Amino acid sequence: MNKVMNSDTPISISAPYLVYFGDVQEESFAKTGLGLAQWRREDCVGQMSRPGCEIRSALPDLTIEQAVAEGAKSIVIGVASVGGAIPSHWVDDLASAARHGLDIVSGMHSRLTSIPVLVEATSTSGARLLDIRTPPPDLPIATGDKRSGKRLLTVGTDCAVGKKYTALAIEKEMQARRWNVDFRATGQTGIMIAGSGIPIDAVVSDFIAGAAEILSPAADEGHWDVIEGQGSLSHPSFAGVSLGLLHGSQPDALVLCHDAARSSVSGLGLDRFPILPFSETIECALAHAHRVNSNARFVGLSVNTSRIESTKRLDLLDQYAEETGLPVIDPIIDGTGPIVDRIASEFS
Amino acid sequence: MNKVMNSDTPISISAPYLVYFGDVQEESFAKTGLGLAQWRREDCVGQMSRPGCEIRSALPDLTIEQAVAEGAKSIVIGVASVGGAIPSHWVDDLASAARHGLDIVSGMHSRLTSIPVLVEATSTSGARLLDIRTPPPDLPIATGDKRSGKRLLTVGTDCAVGKKYTALAIEKEMQARRWNVDFRATGQTGIMIAGSGIPIDAVVSDFIAGAAEILSPAADEGHWDVIEGQGSLSHPSFAGVSLGLLHGSQPDALVLCHDAARSSVSGLGLDRFPILPFSETIECALAHAHRVNSNARFVGLSVNTSRIESTKRLDLLDQYAEETGLPVIDPIIDGTGPIVDRIASEFS
Repeated sequence: MNKVMNSDTPISISAPYLVYFGDVQEESFAKTGLGLAQWRREDCVGQMSRPGCEIRSALPDLTIEQAVAEGAKSIVIGVASVGGAIPSHWVDDLASAARHGLDIVSGMHSRLTSIPVLVEATSTSGARLLDIRTPPPDLPIATGDKRSGKRLLTVGTDCAVGKKYTALAIEKEMQARRWNVDFRATGQTGIMIAGSGIPIDAVVSDFIAGAAEILSPAADEGHWDVIEGQGSLSHPSFAGVSLGLLHGSQPDALVLCHDAARSSVSGLGLDRFPILPFSETIECALAHAHRVNSNARFVGLSVNTSRIESTKRLDLLDQYAEETGLPVIDPIIDGTGPIVDRIASEFS
Repeated sequence: MNKVMNSDTPISISAPYLVYFGDVQEESFAKTGLGLAQWRREDCVGQMSRPGCEIRSALPDLTIEQAVAEGAKSIVIGVASVGGAIPSHWVDDLASAARHGLDIVSGMHSRLTSIPVLVEATSTSGARLLDIRTPPPDLPIATGDKRSGKRLLTVGTDCAVGKKYTALAIEKEMQARRWNVDFRATGQTGIMIAGSGIPIDAVVSDFIAGAAEILSPAADEGHWDVIEGQGSLSHPSFAGVSLGLLHGSQPDALVLCHDAARSSVSGLGLDRFPILPFSETIECALAHAHRVNSNARFVGLSVNTSRIESTKRLDLLDQYAEETGLPVIDPIIDGTGPIVDRIASEFS
């Protein structure tokens, strides 16, 4: 029998990984696997692809047998979505991996457990089929109980403004300073990178905040959970997810993420829902955060400036800093040092 | 084959109903059926119960055969929850009803479709098994598109403060004035009363606002949808549901519901999360509502005064009216006339 997740704990993936790219051609479809190679190089033994695949990560090419010899525990489908289905010609590779005892990890829409060949392959080896889009069962209703330890949540002026990247970059900076820190993932790519997490937007709505509570459990007082935000409180499609995540996370520190070139929220047509002023976004998030943590405060503004002319970049960040009183950085260009400095001074 | 719901439309129940109470003893467990008898008397041909049942609605006792002769289309389990499971000795009654062609409608936790006898019974008659707790499949992501017609949403200072009752009472008052109005249900009891709706707290969180959008579709300009609120924006367990519902509902009019005897939110322990001042609750709801409807405004305050001394009741409502500038009523004692008057003057 293949094992399934059956407790009220986040999904947990066993490292190290063999990253599988199939025969994907475009980098944009392979961002999950490339993200693993970037953020969790130490957890990846290698990559595997089919003839014709153009994706080049920094990982060595390995066969399944070589990966097993290197200690791999899981084969991770490093592809975010090609219509969401798992191509039938990939199934042979995956079944072979499962027969070699590797857990199969997928964020595709089609479920691994719906593919009989894979279920059969795991039945003999005891490997697991992990569908990252499926939340764990038996999630609790949020209690609002205060948990020990410190929490940081990234929130956005919109969807897709760098909330995951910023959280990972802050985790990395804290690790470099030898802080006790964990990145907590709430989306499929984040879950693969973290090796665990809860796909918060797939949770039944009564349990959003409860899922967020078990995602960042009680910890040592000096420990930081850096939680990947989702959506935006001002995005008319997804704000409910964002608010449940905010309440359950009980953040001490909040980092606002923003795309400097964006004037209206994504996905709903140009100029229909303007990006709100920072002051309004911050006030709204704090009002809700203070309901569960009177100590909550903003500690930084993380800006994607990739579409801003380089000559105008610094002036813009200065202007943002004056406007918000926060350290302002582009995490890709500047790193997150100034934000972690602020955290150090605010929570010393 | 039993039919299942398979489109992106709200659940829809066929009237008239035979209300089934099984052998339930306590009124608190039978509130769904009693609510049907109270609010939709005209849709109920009668009630059916087993020996020992103590519930007395105003409906006549009928056998299944008599109910069918009276034109019944559905047998509705009028019991909210006794552990959530359907007792095995009820299944014979339900199977018999299904063989007579009645749809079976249930809000119990255990699924009708998981009971083979019922699936078998519907396979010959073509009756449907309607699990009210199961949202329709293929719900859309919210678009934020403005829909024609007017919408009213009840919001609360807490859960269980009369949001459903207030919405139903406003619908009734509007109907009495011959307005064009529909109650839109978002919880299981409401769905049974309305005969249709979406159990919003059972929807996957990415689709909360999208579900709310299809729940109150575009309508004639003078038409009112009166939408049953859920949770509270300040309840740390359920605020995400409330915000998604608010955004998707795009309300023109909001009615705040409140229990005058409550000082902290329900379910999380006494005095842990205080009920917020009206001003704060109203400001927060309006800020979010204005994101999707710049015309949104509060039109009334509906107060449960059942636990307030009768000598103090009127003074308290006066005080609330002064505090909020809104018409303030207890819908059970006063009706909702003053709120509908305010709507008439604000949206004439």
